[in-house]
Amino acid sequence: MSVLVVGSLALDTIETPFGAVDNALGGSATYIAAAASYFVVPIRLVGVVGGDFPKQGISFLKGRNIDLEGLQVVEDGKTFRWSGKYHYDLNVRDTIFTDVNVFEKFNPIIPEKYRKSKCVCLGNIDPGLQSKVLDQMHNPRVIICDTMNYWIERKNKELRETLKSIKVLILNDSEARLLSKEPNLITAGKVIRAMGPSVVIIKKGEHGALLLTEQMIFSAPAYPMENISDPTGAGDAFAGGFVGWLARTDDLSEENLKRAVIYGSTLASFCVEKFGVDGLADLTYLQIQDRFREFRELSRFEEGD
Amino acid sequence: MSVLVVGSLALDTIETPFGAVDNALGGSATYIAAAASYFVVPIRLVGVVGGDFPKQGISFLKGRNIDLEGLQVVEDGKTFRWSGKYHYDLNVRDTIFTDVNVFEKFNPIIPEKYRKSKCVCLGNIDPGLQSKVLDQMHNPRVIICDTMNYWIERKNKELRETLKSIKVLILNDSEARLLSKEPNLITAGKVIRAMGPSVVIIKKGEHGALLLTEQMIFSAPAYPMENISDPTGAGDAFAGGFVGWLARTDDLSEENLKRAVIYGSTLASFCVEKFGVDGLADLTYLQIQDRFREFRELSRFEEGD
Repeated sequence: MSVLVVGSLALDTIETPFGAVDNALGGSATYIAAAASYFVVPIRLVGVVGGDFPKQGISFLKGRNIDLEGLQVVEDGKTFRWSGKYHYDLNVRDTIFTDVNVFEKFNPIIPEKYRKSKCVCLGNIDPGLQSKVLDQMHNPRVIICDTMNYWIERKNKELRETLKSIKVLILNDSEARLLSKEPNLITAGKVIRAMGPSVVIIKKGEHGALLLTEQMIFSAPAYPMENISDPTGAGDAFAGGFVGWLARTDDLSEENLKRAVIYGSTLASFCVEKFGVDGLADLTYLQIQDRFREFRELSRFEEGD
Repeated sequence: MSVLVVGSLALDTIETPFGAVDNALGGSATYIAAAASYFVVPIRLVGVVGGDFPKQGISFLKGRNIDLEGLQVVEDGKTFRWSGKYHYDLNVRDTIFTDVNVFEKFNPIIPEKYRKSKCVCLGNIDPGLQSKVLDQMHNPRVIICDTMNYWIERKNKELRETLKSIKVLILNDSEARLLSKEPNLITAGKVIRAMGPSVVIIKKGEHGALLLTEQMIFSAPAYPMENISDPTGAGDAFAGGFVGWLARTDDLSEENLKRAVIYGSTLASFCVEKFGVDGLADLTYLQIQDRFREFRELSRFEEGD
């Protein structure tokens, strides 16, 4: 399936206990597209950057075979910037600043040749913009959407409207609880499914992920990691791996959704091993397959007696 | 393998959003022995109660084929009492009161015929008492130990001494972080293994459990539960199911340790479905086997492509 990714492109300034980077390539669309590009090419990208967006950023995306026809460049504007600092416990982070810049007036215009994309992945942006994207599409087979606390709290009505049109919602555990107003994650998944998406994926960081459909609950383990360099982009890399696998296989069966969750977890695990997008820069398909098998080993057990 | 369980017997007053009980049968030894009794009988129990311990408590334990020769009854004393209140989010609980009563002077005397037990399960009690138990045993094949924040903080030296003698330590994620002073659970497991136990099991509540040995990491899913009546005793039921399976199979291989973790999770899931020990009162081995298979289905996925 052809894949369209819409989201942010950013310059991130990140500090973790293990290092720091200034103005490194980031943004939800960047991570999603880079992760998905290991499964199908080209990935079609729609987003916006300023005139200050570095040439190396463009080279990275082109090097990953990402189609940039939909990338808007506002020559006299500045690229979205985000800065965050992670604590020793990497589950905790402070946002130092967010400069929306050119993203504030972002109007996602989908190029004509992108409009028949069979698979649409909406990165974590304003749900109003997500709906605007969907309005321009011609009958996609599967729509996958990410969101976050900020939109759940500030654009709840718009988000609920977007949710009516999508098939797969990916969010983390605290977001699932916030959106559903349910502490129990299984119940939260049901409540969210009743809002529209027939498939809900709840990411639980170091505890893995849950995949919930009408018929099935699948519990994916987390990859055991001791050396996380930078957690930035893990959620987007997950979405990219998930979308990429579905697009590559053109198979939306429950068995294949499970595999897609493991491929999502696989790409997220590679992502956090290095700073910024470096973890997604030069993997091989063999490396990805090997880690997929490690995931299977991690949760496999046989009946005894 | 013959099984000895040492721990507390208590009368619990519990309130959850779904009900309340006064002076219900509880305590770590009660839950561990009841859960283990579905796998091997008799389970040998050592603990202490007061003259106020209800006849129904004794009947329950005898009904589960638990050998009470090691149960000390202090006729003029009162049984250990605990009261807790769970919040709507069942992960949060307040302790209302703890009356140690006869437990304060508990001296675990192991009856002669118990001393050759091959499998020893030390419930969550003072690590000094745990060591006292081990001093009386004749060469057990496997020693399993539970502990909690309270002992990690207040009896750290004694706990570290006990840990040198045991094979399997079971604790929850916050306890693992506290004991190891490591936020990363995989690293925490390694640090704790270096303290003595060659096998560490980290329980993560709604996120399942991790089993860590020198060679292997196994990630067990949590049973998806929407209707938890009362979380009390879940950790002890886990220990009991784990110990019971090992004792039944007499097999300490890594493959069988994985199964034991799933049987532990199975018994914990039954435990929390009802109040107090009611969830462990009348299961069948078939029910247990069915739920074991549900666990397998929950985390099973096959390679595609």
